[in-house]
Amino acid sequence: MDYATLARESLDRVAASKPLIHQITNVVVTNDSANLTLAFGALPVMAYAPQEAAEMAGISQALVLNIGTLSVEEIEAMILAGTAAGAKGIPIVLDPVGAGATLFRTDSALRLLRELPITVLRGNRGEIGALVGSGEVRGVEATGSEDPLEVAKAAREAFGVTVAVTGPTDVIAGPERTYLVRNGTPLLGMITGSGCMATATIGIFATAGEDPAVQTALGLATYGLAAERAAMGDPGPGTFRTRLLDEVAALGATGTEGVTIAEA
Amino acid sequence: MDYATLARESLDRVAASKPLIHQITNVVVTNDSANLTLAFGALPVMAYAPQEAAEMAGISQALVLNIGTLSVEEIEAMILAGTAAGAKGIPIVLDPVGAGATLFRTDSALRLLRELPITVLRGNRGEIGALVGSGEVRGVEATGSEDPLEVAKAAREAFGVTVAVTGPTDVIAGPERTYLVRNGTPLLGMITGSGCMATATIGIFATAGEDPAVQTALGLATYGLAAERAAMGDPGPGTFRTRLLDEVAALGATGTEGVTIAEA
Amino acid sequence: MDYATLARESLDRVAASKPLIHQITNVVVTNDSANLTLAFGALPVMAYAPQEAAEMAGISQALVLNIGTLSVEEIEAMILAGTAAGAKGIPIVLDPVGAGATLFRTDSALRLLRELPITVLRGNRGEIGALVGSGEVRGVEATGSEDPLEVAKAAREAFGVTVAVTGPTDVIAGPERTYLVRNGTPLLGMITGSGCMATATIGIFATAGEDPAVQTALGLATYGLAAERAAMGDPGPGTFRTRLLDEVAALGATGTEGVTIAEA
Repeated sequence: MDYATLARESLDRVAASKPLIHQITNVVVTNDSANLTLAFGALPVMAYAPQEAAEMAGISQALVLNIGTLSVEEIEAMILAGTAAGAKGIPIVLDPVGAGATLFRTDSALRLLRELPITVLRGNRGEIGALVGSGEVRGVEATGSEDPLEVAKAAREAFGVTVAVTGPTDVIAGPERTYLVRNGTPLLGMITGSGCMATATIGIFATAGEDPAVQTALGLATYGLAAERAAMGDPGPGTFRTRLLDEVAALGATGTEGVTIAEA
Repeated sequence: MDYATLARESLDRVAASKPLIHQITNVVVTNDSANLTLAFGALPVMAYAPQEAAEMAGISQALVLNIGTLSVEEIEAMILAGTAAGAKGIPIVLDPVGAGATLFRTDSALRLLRELPITVLRGNRGEIGALVGSGEVRGVEATGSEDPLEVAKAAREAFGVTVAVTGPTDVIAGPERTYLVRNGTPLLGMITGSGCMATATIGIFATAGEDPAVQTALGLATYGLAAERAAMGDPGPGTFRTRLLDEVAALGATGTEGVTIAEA
Repeated sequence: MDYATLARESLDRVAASKPLIHQITNVVVTNDSANLTLAFGALPVMAYAPQEAAEMAGISQALVLNIGTLSVEEIEAMILAGTAAGAKGIPIVLDPVGAGATLFRTDSALRLLRELPITVLRGNRGEIGALVGSGEVRGVEATGSEDPLEVAKAAREAFGVTVAVTGPTDVIAGPERTYLVRNGTPLLGMITGSGCMATATIGIFATAGEDPAVQTALGLATYGLAAERAAMGDPGPGTFRTRLLDEVAALGATGTEGVTIAEA
């Protein structure tokens, strides 16, 4: 199967349909996530108030939930938006930022997994590990030595959703197949929100194809490929961050040759 | 009338008086808006708490209200700040981000228009249209085919405030005259918050002259001119966003020749 | 004493220990502060909810409190986090953004100083002055003519903490010695959050040595040195902001020769 062609087709579908991506995300990354969404040709909308969360999800094509700077009110908004998204049948992507670091984060992520029809769960191996009882984090960084493949499969079993454990190699565990994505650059670890932007990318790609695991792999590979191009010449993190948006926006012209996806 | 000279005079007045611009805005654009305000030579202050909103507005030279990530508490702060601003007689600019997308946004924008002495209302044609019963939006993007000139005039009639409908051509409907501004670049649509920054610009320029419609036209034209310069060579959105700040800060040196304002 | 060597040693300690810096900061600067923390080789975690504030502080190596967009709930989180940080004995840095501009900010900053074992207080001369009954601010900018050395010493006396008053020359008043730091560039005043990032830097450096006043001086000088390098060629504020992150991340390679610290 030619993943570069599939990635290209997904990009084209996004550009043609301009899906509205409703994001309830953290205050650190909200600007970056919105800009990334625009760079992919999709439309971001950030809406957090319980008073409008369900209505906004109801007009959207995907919902992205990110607990990076969670509050009690935001959980309420996520439940309302997620319920509306489930009723409409649009994909829901959950990023359990910092799960394992505090009980509030772990419990909130587990509650969202329990109460909402999550489509894809994405985190680093510490965060996802914490949700299945292994995993070690410091703040929002994975520090343990879990095998990401084991962590992804365990979470896949436990929650019945497609699971993406991102890192030097991304592991995507779907109901039938497991994919490995080898795109990316260590510079992604030098900027805040690179994981959150990966999650937003999954939400965007989930609107462009039927199989969540395949779309997640395509999204992560394409995002990683743009990051590789942005990392050319080994720039500092400020310049890399600027170029990352440039390279994502340029994907229509520069193409998707170079995405590196394999079945595990 | 020589608009380039008028724009230059407004810039000089801002640089000389360093007006304090109190902004209650959304979490997506707060950093960009603050940096833009500094680049124009004004002083930004972001203050959201009901406990201080009135006091902060009372020491400011303009108030900018933006409902992009509205909460119930933030509406309360906006009412307090706007009432204080009205009592002091400083200009108030309202950006009804996403009005029409959810009832919460439409109703909140209408309430602010009803309860506060708004000076200028700025939005895209979908948002402003939604406030007067036409208009079509997806999330925060205009998608319908309304005539911006009709929309601006209808809102001007309905609310009795100066109305700016921004787009490829900006329309500014004042009590006596209507202006068209043709500055700008499609790249502005590739970055989040470009509309919100236009609104902040209006707040800044409103401190530098008596006629809100003229000042709005001057502000939008000057901002659009800086954006045209930042778009030279067709950079990606990350680079464009960086250069936009550079070009706004450089306006004192590069001048305002090129602002394109006409009466409708 | 060779301050360049001491600065280098602190940087090396940070890179080796990767301290977790818990930040409860304002929405304007949260992305910049997180990226700056990563550029220094430390790990940022932004956690604001009262439900997790104490737990997050308890696993961190420093706590940074910044009242730039304060809410009543955030004060509660700060008290919880600060109490946990005090119990653990990790450094707490307080940035009283806009103290003096509103009673809510002044009173909240004074309350945090009273109830928490603050290690270092950093602000501009207007903000720190306001806390000791002098000082003049407009929004978040100092506008009066107080002598920063007098202001720093008065606050040192009043609160019994190390005080950093930043400006063209930074003054750091410790219990035994007072330091002057002359690094920096006027371009820092052209970007929002440059003071907040200075505060985050102090939190990072406070994890790398015993004497808070010395570590504060080293941190401010190193940050200022990176800013000087980013200002080479007098770029616009957008480009400067990008390069500032690049230069901080490059400090391991470019070194700390050029830090300019003297005893007062």
